Amino acid sequence: MAQRTDVTRALAEWIVDCDIAKIPEAVQQEGVRTFVNWLGCAVGGARHETVDRALDALTQFSGAPTSTVIGRGERLDALHTALINGISSHVLDYDDTHLKTIIHPAGPVASAALAVAERHGISGRELLNAMIVGVEVECRIGNSVYPDHYDRGWHITGTAGVFGAAAAVGRLLKLDVQKMVWALGLAATQSSNLREMFGTMTKSFHPGRAAQNGAASAYLAAAGYDSSNQGIEAPRGFANVLSTKQDYNEILGGLGETWEAALNSYKPFACGIVIHPTIDGCIQLRNETGVGANEVEAIELRAHPLVLELTGKREPKTGLESKFSVFHSAACALVRGDGSPTAFTDEAVNDPTLIALRRKVHVTTDPNVHEASVDIVLKLKDGRTIEKKIERAIGSHEKPLSNAQIEAKFRGQAAPVIGAELCDKLLATAWKLPSLGKASEVTAASVPTPVQLATA
Amino acid sequence: MAQRTDVTRALAEWIVDCDIAKIPEAVQQEGVRTFVNWLGCAVGGARHETVDRALDALTQFSGAPTSTVIGRGERLDALHTALINGISSHVLDYDDTHLKTIIHPAGPVASAALAVAERHGISGRELLNAMIVGVEVECRIGNSVYPDHYDRGWHITGTAGVFGAAAAVGRLLKLDVQKMVWALGLAATQSSNLREMFGTMTKSFHPGRAAQNGAASAYLAAAGYDSSNQGIEAPRGFANVLSTKQDYNEILGGLGETWEAALNSYKPFACGIVIHPTIDGCIQLRNETGVGANEVEAIELRAHPLVLELTGKREPKTGLESKFSVFHSAACALVRGDGSPTAFTDEAVNDPTLIALRRKVHVTTDPNVHEASVDIVLKLKDGRTIEKKIERAIGSHEKPLSNAQIEAKFRGQAAPVIGAELCDKLLATAWKLPSLGKASEVTAASVPTPVQLATA
Repeated sequence: MAQRTDVTRALAEWIVDCDIAKIPEAVQQEGVRTFVNWLGCAVGGARHETVDRALDALTQFSGAPTSTVIGRGERLDALHTALINGISSHVLDYDDTHLKTIIHPAGPVASAALAVAERHGISGRELLNAMIVGVEVECRIGNSVYPDHYDRGWHITGTAGVFGAAAAVGRLLKLDVQKMVWALGLAATQSSNLREMFGTMTKSFHPGRAAQNGAASAYLAAAGYDSSNQGIEAPRGFANVLSTKQDYNEILGGLGETWEAALNSYKPFACGIVIHPTIDGCIQLRNETGVGANEVEAIELRAHPLVLELTGKREPKTGLESKFSVFHSAACALVRGDGSPTAFTDEAVNDPTLIALRRKVHVTTDPNVHEASVDIVLKLKDGRTIEKKIERAIGSHEKPLSNAQIEAKFRGQAAPVIGAELCDKLLATAWKLPSLGKASEVTAASVPTPVQLATA
Repeated sequence: MAQRTDVTRALAEWIVDCDIAKIPEAVQQEGVRTFVNWLGCAVGGARHETVDRALDALTQFSGAPTSTVIGRGERLDALHTALINGISSHVLDYDDTHLKTIIHPAGPVASAALAVAERHGISGRELLNAMIVGVEVECRIGNSVYPDHYDRGWHITGTAGVFGAAAAVGRLLKLDVQKMVWALGLAATQSSNLREMFGTMTKSFHPGRAAQNGAASAYLAAAGYDSSNQGIEAPRGFANVLSTKQDYNEILGGLGETWEAALNSYKPFACGIVIHPTIDGCIQLRNETGVGANEVEAIELRAHPLVLELTGKREPKTGLESKFSVFHSAACALVRGDGSPTAFTDEAVNDPTLIALRRKVHVTTDPNVHEASVDIVLKLKDGRTIEKKIERAIGSHEKPLSNAQIEAKFRGQAAPVIGAELCDKLLATAWKLPSLGKASEVTAASVPTPVQLATA
């Protein structure tokens, strides 16, 4: 594509112009599903040690409390709330995925938008509008540089997410086009986050910081703090500096007509998306054969090289590390039928049965196998061999979770944290997002009282 | 160099170990000069519109006030104070320069360290120690990736500065080695900032945000928020993702023996460093010839291509833009003998005499001319031709500013903002940094009372 000089401005014009009436009903519905899934993840992760430590470090720096930490109830300023909710929504690696780019869209965008909406008393409908626009911006910018940008080592959820958060919050603050351009420029210059951080607490920091920095970009622009007019496309702007691929048609082509936000998917399993076909297949094999761990001779997987690259930890030591181990995941799925957060705990990773079985998992990589597929051969000690071919896993765009499955996932995460009763109330409130007078009804409904916790 | 896996840890060990007794006296003295120069710049920029707008946007998000905005007196939390002082110290493009990398070292490091020192009641000596270590870390990391990293479009003051701020604040918080490693990892994943932002308010945001994010990295690590152990050197860490050059010997070689912090230089002119030889030469020509603007036929410059690349604005419209115009700078130096902040105002850039003269400035680029040199040919209407060859400009490492010149620069910036009397008091306090019981004596001395302002 020839050099363009109007990408940032054209995108800003669309962001400012895209009222909810211009968003198709089906995209709005997917937006609500995105919101509900994100909220369940944020509640599910709310009591994680990672969140505790971030609060320990940063609460002292919060401004006047205007917004609520989901599932906990601490009140912080909107920017710190965006950070903390972004961390908690990602810490279980259970959030949503834009499969074309492996962006987890809601973490940066919904975390920023809800915290800001609560601060300013904004309606659920406006929040939904802003969130969908933010997710669209984030995924399109991701598409424009993927895969080179990701292959280089950028954690695209953070690098693209900061634009999505800026766009969403920019809408909530009703920025004009020039200020929206500046907000995108401020986002561009804060686009960062390295894949090296995977397997540490800092991975979850990425969507949180992208939410916080994107929101700050919008507030700065609102105050007239100016920036480049070509933050995305300039020779020393985001796309050229952070990628060798720059396809601006991915950003501007069909804008408002085709929707990346409608392609969002929701993980049924609490780990890296590339292991999902393996877990899906191993759970199916468990259900179909009922084999015990001591009957297994070997579990042979044929998978895309990315599977080992991203999740090749053979001997994970902690629950967190086990999310990056296809070996542990396969063993746990076959023995326990579990791919939920309870499959990735310190208990599970140190279970002698699972340790023994994961050492019987062998992975052959083959670039001809699709990233979203796997071929599994289960060899038993009695000589039987059972094959299972997973073309696409549950939760993929081809086999999306139903609303009922999203609800079940929500309850599985949220009920242990805030109690079953509050969990149901929160879920009901979340589905009603488009009609809520204030988006903050959701955050209020996420916070347990001492009585509710005692009866949980 | 072969792949190394201990760069971040070895650096962290040195940071933790490097008490003031291990810093040579001459390096300490340069550290004080760095501090004084930075402080003058921060006071000089304190009332700039860029600072006003940042405060307008972000004061609402500040936590409990523990630290002081230099030269103004607003009190904010330490992280926001670091941001604002980082912005004000850079906004006049008058701050210090590590000439090997064009890093402006003090902005990220001193802004973070002083705000945190004030919050915790830390002594001037400890602040000086932390600042020198932080500058050393920042410049060495810069050296390891320069020039490729900068050429690619990264604003190295921000990308390297965040490490320096993390190191300095990590020392003030007395992090152990493991936590210092995490702080550097958190800094690595926040390393960003694009050169595209030059000429906008967002350029000054870079050292400020690097200060704020580096300090936050140290606070997070102190609370046990973990990160990569190889944030700098991992295949998907800072150096590999943000550069094609990775020379880790620049980071670890001679650590504690040779000092990049001793190579800091201080700008005599309030603009991009590559124009300094031109301004120096034109001021000399003015003093030697006494020519008036209407006697000039042409000013011909032969300079390194970087000069036009960085400062090639032919028709700057604002004071800010004029800092990136070698044409305006040459004209203003020849007519007014001025390279101080008053040379780069909206008034100066719109002066008809200077507009006419800058159009007579012609630049020939030649890669064989050193970046720090220039050949000037002044052609007069009466047929005379006067040549001036500037090998190195005043303020360069070869021709450093004396303490008296640093003081004159300080007064030229600070007195108009806080009054001459307070300016003298502040300067005296700043030079005494190593013996101050509390570093915050400096910030207190920088704030004018209404009475002082009225008599200024």
